[in-house]
Amino acid sequence: MTSPQPAAEQIAEPAAPAVSADHPGVDELFAVLAYGEVAAFYRLTEEARMAPDLRGRINMASMAAAEMGHYETLRDALERRGVDVVAAMTKYASALENYHRMTTPSTWLEALVKTYIGDALAADFYLEIAHSLPEEIASVVRSVLSETGHSQFVVAEVRAAVTASVRQRHRLALWARRLLGEAVTQAQFVLADHDELVDLVMSSGEGLTQLAEFFNRLQHTHHSRMQELGLA
Amino acid sequence: MTSPQPAAEQIAEPAAPAVSADHPGVDELFAVLAYGEVAAFYRLTEEARMAPDLRGRINMASMAAAEMGHYETLRDALERRGVDVVAAMTKYASALENYHRMTTPSTWLEALVKTYIGDALAADFYLEIAHSLPEEIASVVRSVLSETGHSQFVVAEVRAAVTASVRQRHRLALWARRLLGEAVTQAQFVLADHDELVDLVMSSGEGLTQLAEFFNRLQHTHHSRMQELGLA
Repeated sequence: MTSPQPAAEQIAEPAAPAVSADHPGVDELFAVLAYGEVAAFYRLTEEARMAPDLRGRINMASMAAAEMGHYETLRDALERRGVDVVAAMTKYASALENYHRMTTPSTWLEALVKTYIGDALAADFYLEIAHSLPEEIASVVRSVLSETGHSQFVVAEVRAAVTASVRQRHRLALWARRLLGEAVTQAQFVLADHDELVDLVMSSGEGLTQLAEFFNRLQHTHHSRMQELGLA
Repeated sequence: MTSPQPAAEQIAEPAAPAVSADHPGVDELFAVLAYGEVAAFYRLTEEARMAPDLRGRINMASMAAAEMGHYETLRDALERRGVDVVAAMTKYASALENYHRMTTPSTWLEALVKTYIGDALAADFYLEIAHSLPEEIASVVRSVLSETGHSQFVVAEVRAAVTASVRQRHRLALWARRLLGEAVTQAQFVLADHDELVDLVMSSGEGLTQLAEFFNRLQHTHHSRMQELGLA
């Protein structure tokens, strides 16, 4: 994902981030991400039961373990900010659990695609807002992002399957579209309930002046993920 | 666990380990431990569904994630030794899965006790043989051991429950005894099928000249764990 370079006069301006470190939306952002990591952990391990072999189960377990590493980064950051972590996370339980309930995979390939798209959507979301956050906040976000390479094992397996079967390709392309749709729906519910988060997202970055634009951008990067998986 | 100090003439002897690094039992030891970590990962996450709250689910998920960290240490060591990791692990699937099937907890407290006893038994086993292994092997074993502190959260919760209820205490004491019995049974099956492992255990350490003595020692350290949990 490449962003347009800022014009020279913008570079000359003071490098103050658009959002201050004590913006209340930061606590909410970390809390929803933290719940997301724990929810992803449990979903990955449940969906791994569909793995055809031990190797697949091990790969999913490693990815799930990485989610808990991300969770611990977010928990530590919330604790440093004096937030009651579990209470803050609990507010986001229903949106995240609804997303997973609405997107329960019925095959191993659907589980793999969900893992990959889910990781990628989270990464896109972080990247959209990270650059306008103060350094101490951005560094937490970056370290949560840094391990998503785990899901690369998915690409080889999905590409092999969709190269072998056009029917499988159409089926998984529809599935991936549904994953994006549900993620956007639940993200909108979350934003509707949390003004601090809307304010954080709205005040982030040059281009991010409208939520619609933000979601359009997610759609665009989603498309490039579909191409990576051989689904577009 | 304190071991008797070796006599002075023993210290004067050359410090060569009792087992060489290319003993075939080392591959088998790492493989059974590796399968054990992956099996523990999946069991912990399944049993965590009984947690009464989000905090309990998070604690279990962190412990499970730590198991995958141990797995990765063992996998790397096996790969350095030129072993086909997944194939080597698969030989131990039935013993480990049988152990878990025979010890499926029916309450959250049983799940907690199983976690703690399981971690402790694995640690006891490692400690029994680690000191006679060559340094490169012992360091793998030590780094797998080093994170078992995660299960300390179990102690507070179990002690509180058994202090409040004598019935609960008796029930969990029986449960813990059953866990030890099943672990010993499955360990004996594993040893019966793998001469290289028997040879490794038999040639480990001064006191470890007989398997019966080895199992007696496990029983003894198990008792001290029962005391820690308030069950003995």
